[in-house]
Amino acid sequence: MRSRRLERLVPYTPGEQPQDRSYLKLNTNENPYPPAPGVHEVLDSFSAADLRRYPDPRCTRLREAAAEEAGLDPENVFVGNGSDEVLSFAFFPFFDTALGALLFHRYSYSFFPVYCDFYDIEYQHVPLEQDFSILPSRFLDHPESCGVVFPNPNAPTGIAVGRGEIQNLLEHYPGDRVVLIDEAYVDFGAQSCIEILREWPNLLVVQTFSKSRSLAGMRLGFAYGGAPLIEALTAAKDSFNSYPVDAIAQAVGIAALSDSPYYRSVAARIAATREDFTASLRDAGWLVLPSKANFVFAAHPSLPGREVYRQLKERGILVRHFQTEGIDRFVRITIGMPEDMERLLATAGELEAG
Amino acid sequence: MRSRRLERLVPYTPGEQPQDRSYLKLNTNENPYPPAPGVHEVLDSFSAADLRRYPDPRCTRLREAAAEEAGLDPENVFVGNGSDEVLSFAFFPFFDTALGALLFHRYSYSFFPVYCDFYDIEYQHVPLEQDFSILPSRFLDHPESCGVVFPNPNAPTGIAVGRGEIQNLLEHYPGDRVVLIDEAYVDFGAQSCIEILREWPNLLVVQTFSKSRSLAGMRLGFAYGGAPLIEALTAAKDSFNSYPVDAIAQAVGIAALSDSPYYRSVAARIAATREDFTASLRDAGWLVLPSKANFVFAAHPSLPGREVYRQLKERGILVRHFQTEGIDRFVRITIGMPEDMERLLATAGELEAG
Repeated sequence: MRSRRLERLVPYTPGEQPQDRSYLKLNTNENPYPPAPGVHEVLDSFSAADLRRYPDPRCTRLREAAAEEAGLDPENVFVGNGSDEVLSFAFFPFFDTALGALLFHRYSYSFFPVYCDFYDIEYQHVPLEQDFSILPSRFLDHPESCGVVFPNPNAPTGIAVGRGEIQNLLEHYPGDRVVLIDEAYVDFGAQSCIEILREWPNLLVVQTFSKSRSLAGMRLGFAYGGAPLIEALTAAKDSFNSYPVDAIAQAVGIAALSDSPYYRSVAARIAATREDFTASLRDAGWLVLPSKANFVFAAHPSLPGREVYRQLKERGILVRHFQTEGIDRFVRITIGMPEDMERLLATAGELEAG
Repeated sequence: MRSRRLERLVPYTPGEQPQDRSYLKLNTNENPYPPAPGVHEVLDSFSAADLRRYPDPRCTRLREAAAEEAGLDPENVFVGNGSDEVLSFAFFPFFDTALGALLFHRYSYSFFPVYCDFYDIEYQHVPLEQDFSILPSRFLDHPESCGVVFPNPNAPTGIAVGRGEIQNLLEHYPGDRVVLIDEAYVDFGAQSCIEILREWPNLLVVQTFSKSRSLAGMRLGFAYGGAPLIEALTAAKDSFNSYPVDAIAQAVGIAALSDSPYYRSVAARIAATREDFTASLRDAGWLVLPSKANFVFAAHPSLPGREVYRQLKERGILVRHFQTEGIDRFVRITIGMPEDMERLLATAGELEAG
């Protein structure tokens, strides 16, 4: 009763989402601030009676709003049920092992190898530098690859790469293979590649409303690219589920897009909190990688990540740790409110070695 | 830039969803009645601030509520973003061409061959009877198949098969291959197989809240089956998108489940309207297949389906037609309010032959 497809899967493990809500949750990179005020208004005014209709399968108005904000046309925008789904839809049409393996970093978004297993795509790890920074030119060591995918800023390290270095990669990478940049965390301090999209027909940029827009519970993800790439994503969606974005999510997304100053201000506050927290944690002797995201990747002076995770959880704080060799001394800590980070700093001082 | 996967796709075409709403929409089997009153209350009371959190990836409370209504345990329930997505997730783990082709009827849900193309699953058509009725024992002519899938009632014909005939199929079909029954329309007059689930570990039943529950805009689909089948569906989901059901959809689903008398009463009214409409359309000389769904499949005395569709659309009414040989004389007409069907009957009298 189990297909060969199922046998090859090792599913992704999402961060713990305890339903009792008794923890300080710094484990899933959620935003501590509420969504834009317009989102409240949409929920207040949405008529339940309208739910008897199917939603617009093309998300027409939402794509128009997203295109306008990005300085693009609606044919350059795809919307899905969260950026994880958008990435899933992207792996289907663009990455074909017949052309070579898909390239991504050893320490990168841990869903990438899962998508590959889902679709039976071969992949190859490209090394990060010793300090965990990204050197995009390393991808050029594998010209036989079928494509490239990396988050910018990277997850779980938080380290960003400049747009100029990505331009340099695009100039030398085969133009008939897709370079996919997952910009889930870009609003917290990195440079988006949306503004160079028109120059590169093989560039696809994915973003989410789960982080800077405070809408993780609503499930909205976006892809931006040339019209042929967006058409291919749409064909994948329409072969899997024609209506992944519900009617309320479409209305909420439009409301969120109409108030960009709000989310930019929230993102700036989180970035400021991150800088303060990074300095304090370093003062306490931790190794903290330089982050441009709404989290930091940090190693305790002596305890492995798993132990830091365990002791913090005992004390009511959730962070995320990874068992992967090479990053098992780190924990990934979401940036919350300033008072959340002060509580974490105080608690971190109580951790017991041995 | 196009994978071989993409090249083999012919995406599903959802029914027209005009955004101007100026048509009488009898083309996508939407419910003419609003969802249960509790759904209004959930929307009124939902706090936008809670959207900053990810939803429960396991839909724990919603699965508990669905299990209680079905007389099953939560481990027997899977929830996805509409039943199309649930079907997608089911095709992945259960149907493997290495064991033989997947079996379904020539005139059946037109998404089935699309899922097969998406995952590269071979399929084989099994004939319906001359009068379009389903004889499940026909599936036994192909013992080398990897599984069986059919809607009950069937789409687009609306014809249902009794539970006893499905029991008979299960008794003779290999017990290590999944029999998947898509019960999207079951509440309008057919017999559900949920109550025989415990007897058959290879039986998977899929239902939706888009039809009888009036929640097409919310995207909620369910699968019911033995725990190993549900675990396999969960593994597929967690390898594609961990959070397909947003926080509002989970809350709305729980509210809808708490008021079963409401949806049963709505379904009964629609079934009564269907019977009246069927009699009237037959009186006008149409061939109308005996439907247990919230639509009828009907052929005009002389005009092909495409022409009926075109002339009705000109007159402000949308129905669905199919270009497939053998059913191209039919249109599929959704059952709306009694006054909607009266308008359609009056308009049908104006259709011009030639």
